Order: sequence, then structure tokens, then C-alpha cells
Amino acid sequence: MNETVKKKLQSILPPEQLHFELSERYAYSFDASFGEYLPEAVAQPSTALEISDIIKLANQHQFPVYPRGSATSLSGGPLPVEGGLVLDMSQMKSRLTIDKENMLAIASPGVMTGDIHKQAEEAGLFYPPDPSSAHVSTIAGNILENSSGPKGLKYGTTKEYVIGLEIVTPQGEIVRTGGKTVKNVTGFDLTRLITGSEGMLAVVTEVTLRLIPLPKARKTMMVTFDSAVDCGRAITKILAAGTLPAAMELMDNACIKAVEHFEPSGLPVEAGALLILEVDGHPLSIEEEIEDCRQICGEMKAITIKVAGTDKERMEIWKARKKVSPAITQMGPTKISEDATVPRSKIPEMMEKLNVIRDKYQLNLVVFGHAGDGNLHPNIITDKRNREEMKRAEDAVGEIFQAALDLGGTLSGEHGIGTLKAPYLEREYGKEGVALLKAIKNAWDPNNILNPGKMFAKDGQTKVVLT
Amino acid sequence: MNETVKKKLQSILPPEQLHFELSERYAYSFDASFGEYLPEAVAQPSTALEISDIIKLANQHQFPVYPRGSATSLSGGPLPVEGGLVLDMSQMKSRLTIDKENMLAIASPGVMTGDIHKQAEEAGLFYPPDPSSAHVSTIAGNILENSSGPKGLKYGTTKEYVIGLEIVTPQGEIVRTGGKTVKNVTGFDLTRLITGSEGMLAVVTEVTLRLIPLPKARKTMMVTFDSAVDCGRAITKILAAGTLPAAMELMDNACIKAVEHFEPSGLPVEAGALLILEVDGHPLSIEEEIEDCRQICGEMKAITIKVAGTDKERMEIWKARKKVSPAITQMGPTKISEDATVPRSKIPEMMEKLNVIRDKYQLNLVVFGHAGDGNLHPNIITDKRNREEMKRAEDAVGEIFQAALDLGGTLSGEHGIGTLKAPYLEREYGKEGVALLKAIKNAWDPNNILNPGKMFAKDGQTKVVLT
Repeated sequence: MNETVKKKLQSILPPEQLHFELSERYAYSFDASFGEYLPEAVAQPSTALEISDIIKLANQHQFPVYPRGSATSLSGGPLPVEGGLVLDMSQMKSRLTIDKENMLAIASPGVMTGDIHKQAEEAGLFYPPDPSSAHVSTIAGNILENSSGPKGLKYGTTKEYVIGLEIVTPQGEIVRTGGKTVKNVTGFDLTRLITGSEGMLAVVTEVTLRLIPLPKARKTMMVTFDSAVDCGRAITKILAAGTLPAAMELMDNACIKAVEHFEPSGLPVEAGALLILEVDGHPLSIEEEIEDCRQICGEMKAITIKVAGTDKERMEIWKARKKVSPAITQMGPTKISEDATVPRSKIPEMMEKLNVIRDKYQLNLVVFGHAGDGNLHPNIITDKRNREEMKRAEDAVGEIFQAALDLGGTLSGEHGIGTLKAPYLEREYGKEGVALLKAIKNAWDPNNILNPGKMFAKDGQTKVVLT
Repeated sequence: MNETVKKKLQSILPPEQLHFELSERYAYSFDASFGEYLPEAVAQPSTALEISDIIKLANQHQFPVYPRGSATSLSGGPLPVEGGLVLDMSQMKSRLTIDKENMLAIASPGVMTGDIHKQAEEAGLFYPPDPSSAHVSTIAGNILENSSGPKGLKYGTTKEYVIGLEIVTPQGEIVRTGGKTVKNVTGFDLTRLITGSEGMLAVVTEVTLRLIPLPKARKTMMVTFDSAVDCGRAITKILAAGTLPAAMELMDNACIKAVEHFEPSGLPVEAGALLILEVDGHPLSIEEEIEDCRQICGEMKAITIKVAGTDKERMEIWKARKKVSPAITQMGPTKISEDATVPRSKIPEMMEKLNVIRDKYQLNLVVFGHAGDGNLHPNIITDKRNREEMKRAEDAVGEIFQAALDLGGTLSGEHGIGTLKAPYLEREYGKEGVALLKAIKNAWDPNNILNPGKMFAKDGQTKVVLT
């Protein structure tokens, strides 16, 4: 980045919003996935107009721009892999309006998703998407990755709640898409195209979310099974009986052991699978629903069933799930966190394939995930300094992706493609499908300014973890 | 269409699937909106491969291709405005699979949406989108227009249920997007981009829909108010109290009168507004919810409240709503059916603006719609042979659109832009927004083969109804 460009940037932003020092730049060189890439500059814009000016400058001088929220991405979403400028959106957080009458939230891109949850609830409303990073991640980051958390089955994903956006295009134009109505079919649906676009098609500068009434009550139970197969059958039977739980969280044996090892709380370390199931809705109906679920689990060979009677017991059940992340982080310095997703009926088969992969590659592979929507999170715990093990991990990851695709699933349920799955994209979308994706990117961003180096593999690139 | 092209078409399709006779072509020259445009040929393909061959031929010989379902479009979606070939998709209906375990429906494009409702219900499942044409319209037609019906507020629109597509691109490639999982963030979301794309970006050759468990019970009530303002307040209060009705259908005084005139059934012709409200879910909770709704309506100055006690009474309430369409069709030979949509809190204001427009232009304007999601259907009943009245209608339609936009709404909630709203698109999307839409269209369809003449106005075009 030459002095001319730096000077022009300085004419757009005040000095405290612009950083060229190594120490500052270093702080923006990584995310929650792999690899470190030093940007040449960091900008902390506070208005769409500033972003528009920056992007127009980037087109003029051909430097890449990398939008970044809280950098909790597990796929390399915000990594500045080709240098250039990081656009730190986390400071653009002045607005969070809850429009109770229209059941909407309107927010600046850097607002934390957890704050939206909180303020919506205070108004008696509910924003269901709940990625486990919600207490630190930004709403625009969640939207650009379409990360959604455990409630996808009953409530849909983030995409189902984003109804309007203000964006800055890759050529620096400010555009509004969608609006304040659930129904809007004016033009192609750019709102949904941008949601999940991994920061490659637009910078999001304001979001409009639809909210729903807060469920009046919830009820939670924890069930253990001998095997994921038994657990999968119970889930299918519960759904077939007409109950739609808000969450069905699955942990495999390795995961149960990891959590119990991390902080003993009497979890059954012999169980093949542990299921946390929550129903929500009207107080009268959830009592009956949880009883139905309990009965079905009993018939389907559950080993233990514990229904939370109090809010305290409910929190304790969820604690087991919330400990998963710290527990596995403690197991090793490097965590490869995947999100291969399969049709729900294929979960037992996928769990078996994961067992085979674990044995074949002799890896520390822990599986948990959102069983209701087939979104599994196989995590390989390793150490990136151990290159031999990393090589096995790389091969295992490839097999995990292939297993999901073979079962009619997808590479990614909610983490995105980013740098980490780029070489596998064509396996799912096909050559012609990838051509459609690239055609949109090229049409909107002919200079390849926004988040270059993501989603599309370089010619001949087949591996990622070790790069 | 010259003899060479005809011969090549004959080499792709057997004679019974290809029509060049005037009488056949005439049958494909209109839809449920305005204008007649004679195509040069009609093809009735039965496989994606045939469609691929036809579209490749169209690119080679530069003739337009107009996909068409049952032609119930109210915006001119399938009209062959530039001649060429109509692709009649209604005969491609061999597959309708309900996958109970994964709660999915997989269907050929020409399957009727009503048949999906029926077969899903037989499996204890539910496909909520329910355009009033569902008994005759095709699922691919519904998807390409994202037409959704009354249940948008509680259940979302068609888009929220389409998770996978097989398409033929405007250059004739067969591509699969999405899949069988609710969560899928691999690549940009082409599934949602194509949903609502009005047949301009792809021909849909197979659809995968997610289903949900069938609500166990429903309860319906009919309420009348002095004014739409009172009705709007009641709706807001019901939602604020935490009840999310499955449907809230609003009819204005002109609409009530029209229905009562069509077939007298004791509707209160003096009422300013009539609301049909339905809750669904667990039998225990809906009893309480309907009671809450009844109380709130009472507090909010309802004139009459009737809760259906039996299924027969429920059907009778819905009959009033279902008679709207035949009733207004009887009022005059030409119906201009709009779907301007506003944020829910703006419904009373929008109703007032519609009253002003009715008086100003002295038109037969009847208003009904989906009050829960702000999706109104102002219908102007006129006679297209009366050019003076049509001119007034044209001006009134322009004012209706502007009123919706001024209130933070949208041109179209579910009918689409097509030919009938093209000149107004830029008012909502802005010049730069329209440029983004055109960029996608041009990138995918450089020869402008698929459904040309829709969505984008011709240079200087400002009027539509009279053309």
C-alpha cells in the first residue's frame, strides 16, 4: 500500500479510525480458524458513506478489502489472505432499535447478536438464531456466514429472519435491499443472496430482522442412549408423532467423555450418545409434548431420561452442552471444527462413518451437533506443529466431506466455505454450479476487491488445512 | 421461427409435445393478468435434458423461451411478450415423493401445490404456503413468483420452504442447488436467488421442500369493526400479547358488500372491516389463544365476534373469504389485482390512503388481504374496453404503489413485477439496485433468452396497464 493510497485513506477517515502500525495490524491477522495473514492497513468505519469511499478507492487503486466482525469465523471468512485493508465493522454499532409493533429489529452491523436476543426478549419478542458465539459475534458477521445454531429445525436459519439490508456494493454504491415486510418479491431476492455470501458480494451496513413472539415457556430433558443409532431412531419417532422440539443437541461418546473429564458432573461416560431436547411454546402444550418425548425415548431404548423440573435443573442440563467447547479446546492446541450436514435420517449412518474415520486416521475426533437439522460438528483436536498428524487430519477432513455428500448432505451447514473448504466446493456444486457462483461475483466485483481468496479454490488446489 | 429451428425442435421432442398450430399457440397467449402475446411455438418437455437441449438451441438461434406453469400469474409472469417459444411445464408432473422421515417433499415442477398439501397432510405433515390459486397452480410457478398466501406471518413465505432445486440455466446447463438439509451454506444461496426470480434466471425442473409437523388443531373466528383503524389496533395488541395467529385475513367495507351481494349470507354490510383470524397448534393452547384474541377484540371495539365451535362453522367463516374472488370477478370484466405490502403497523394508514385514491379516481376499488404480514390486495374492477376508466385505473395504480413505498412498504408482496410493475421497479430498488439485478441477469443470460421483457422497464416506459 503506497503513500498515495495511505494519504487518500487518511482523507476519508480520522486518524483514530485508521491503523498502519504492525501491532495493530497483527491483531487483525487471524480469526477462529487457521492461518495468519497480515493486512497492510485496518479501517474502522462508522458510516456507510465512509465505506463507500474506501471501496471506491480500493477499486481505483486495486487493493483488496476484507470486512470483519468479531472474527469468530471457523472457515477463514475474514482472513486478509491477500493483504490489503481489513474493514473492522465491529465498531459500527450505534443502532439497535426494536420495533415492537412490527416485530422487527433494526441494527448496525457491529451490534452483538446476544444484545439483539436480550433487547428482543425485554420487548416480549424472540430472535431464534443463536450461534454459540452469539455473546461475542456481530449480527452482520452472523448474516454474512448465515450461522444459525441449534434452532434451525423448528425456527429456520438466520436467513429466515433477515428481511432487509443496507449494503455497500463491491463497487462502492450504497443500496437498500428488501425492507420491513416479511413479504417482498420486488426484483430478485438480493437480501437472501447477500446473506451467507461470506463478505464477497457486499459490505452490510444495516440489517432489518423479523422477530416473533417470545415462546411463553420451555421445557428441557437430557436422555442417554447406547448408540447414536438408537438416538437417531428416537428423534425420528418424536418428529413423526408431531412434536417439533426447539432444539435437539447430540453429543457422541468421545464428546461426553471430554466434557466429563473437563469438569466432572456425573455424565454417563459409557453412553454412546447423549441428547438434550428442548420444547417451547404454550405452557399447557409443552407439558404434554415433553411427556410424549419422554415416553418415546423410553420405548426407543433410552438408558437414562432426566426432565428438568426447575429452571435451575434446566440450566444444569444445558451446562453439559456449553462445556463442550472449552472441554475440547483443553484437549489440544489446534481444533479443526467442521459442520458437515446430512439429512436427519442419515445421522446414524454419518455417526458410524465418523467412527470409521476416527479409527482409520487415529485422530482425536469428537462429535456433537444439532441433530434436529442434521448439522453435525465433528471436531478434530490436534496440534498444528505436528505435521504428520496434521496430514492425517487433512485426509480425514476430506473423507468427512465426502461422507456427508455421499449421504445427500452438504459440506457446510453454517460455518461457510471460506479458505478451509474451497477445494471441495466443486464436489458439491459441480463445475457448472461453481460457474454460476463465479458469474455473480465477477459481475458485481469485476476488480475482485471484496474478500478475495475465499470460496473458490486456486487452480489445482486440493488441500487446505496445512497451507 | 424458421424451418431450420422447427426441425431442430422436432429432433428434440416427439410431435405430441410440440405445437405450432395457431389454435394451440393461442391457448398459451395469456395469463391471469393483461395482454395477449402469441408465441411462435409451444413445447411440453418431460425431462430436464429436453429443456437443456431446447435452451441450447434457443441460444444458438436467438429465440426467447417463456417458462409457464398454470398461467395463474397476476403480473404477466409467463406472457410471451416477445414471441418465441412457450415452455409449458405443467405436464412435467410425474414425481411427488413425501419423505416422512426427513420431513421433505420432492416434486416435479408441474405438480399442483394443492396436491403437495394433500399428500403432506396424509403423512401428518404440513406445507404452509397456500396461494389462493393452489388448487390449480404449479409448485414451480409458485416458487418462481414466491407467491405465498395468508400464512406468511406465522410460517414465512414459499422461500422459507424451498431448500433444493434442480434447474436448467439460461445457457442450458443442468445444475443442482441446495439439497435436503435446512442448513446449507455451501456457496452463495442460488436456491433462494432463483425462488422469486420470475423465470428469468432458470427453469426449475425439480424442487425439494421442507415440511413441518401438521398442527394438531385449529380454531377460527370472525370479527367485525367500525373501521380498519380499529381492526389494525386489535391485530397489533393480539401480537403484542404473544399470540401468533396462522392467518389474519382482512376485508374492507367494499369487499364485504361485494361478497354479500354475490351470495347473501348475513355479512354485516355496514362494517368498516372484517377480520378472519385463525390460530393453530396444540389443542390445549389454541383454546386459550382464541379466548385471548376474543377478549382483545372485545376491548378494541369489535362490533361482532363469532368463534367457530365446529368444523362446519369454521368452513362457513372461511367461505366468506373464499367468495371474494368470484364476487369481484362478477363485478366487471377486468380486474387489476395488486399486492402492495406495508409494515403491519401501517395498515390503517394504507387503508385510508386507498380510500382517498378510490374517491379521487372514482373507481370500483375493493380491498382485502393478509393483515398479519401487511400484504394487501387492492383490486380495481373495471373494463379494459373503457379506455377513459382504464386511464384513471393506471394513475390510481401508480398512486397505490407510491403510497406503499411512502409507508416503508414494497411494490409487490407476492405477485411479482412481471410486465405490470416494471416501470415502478426503480422507485423501490433505486438505479444502483436495479443495476445489481441486471448484472446478475446479464451474467447468467447474456443472450437474454429466458423470459425477456419482464421486470426491467424499456427506456422511458412509465405506464403499463393500457399497453
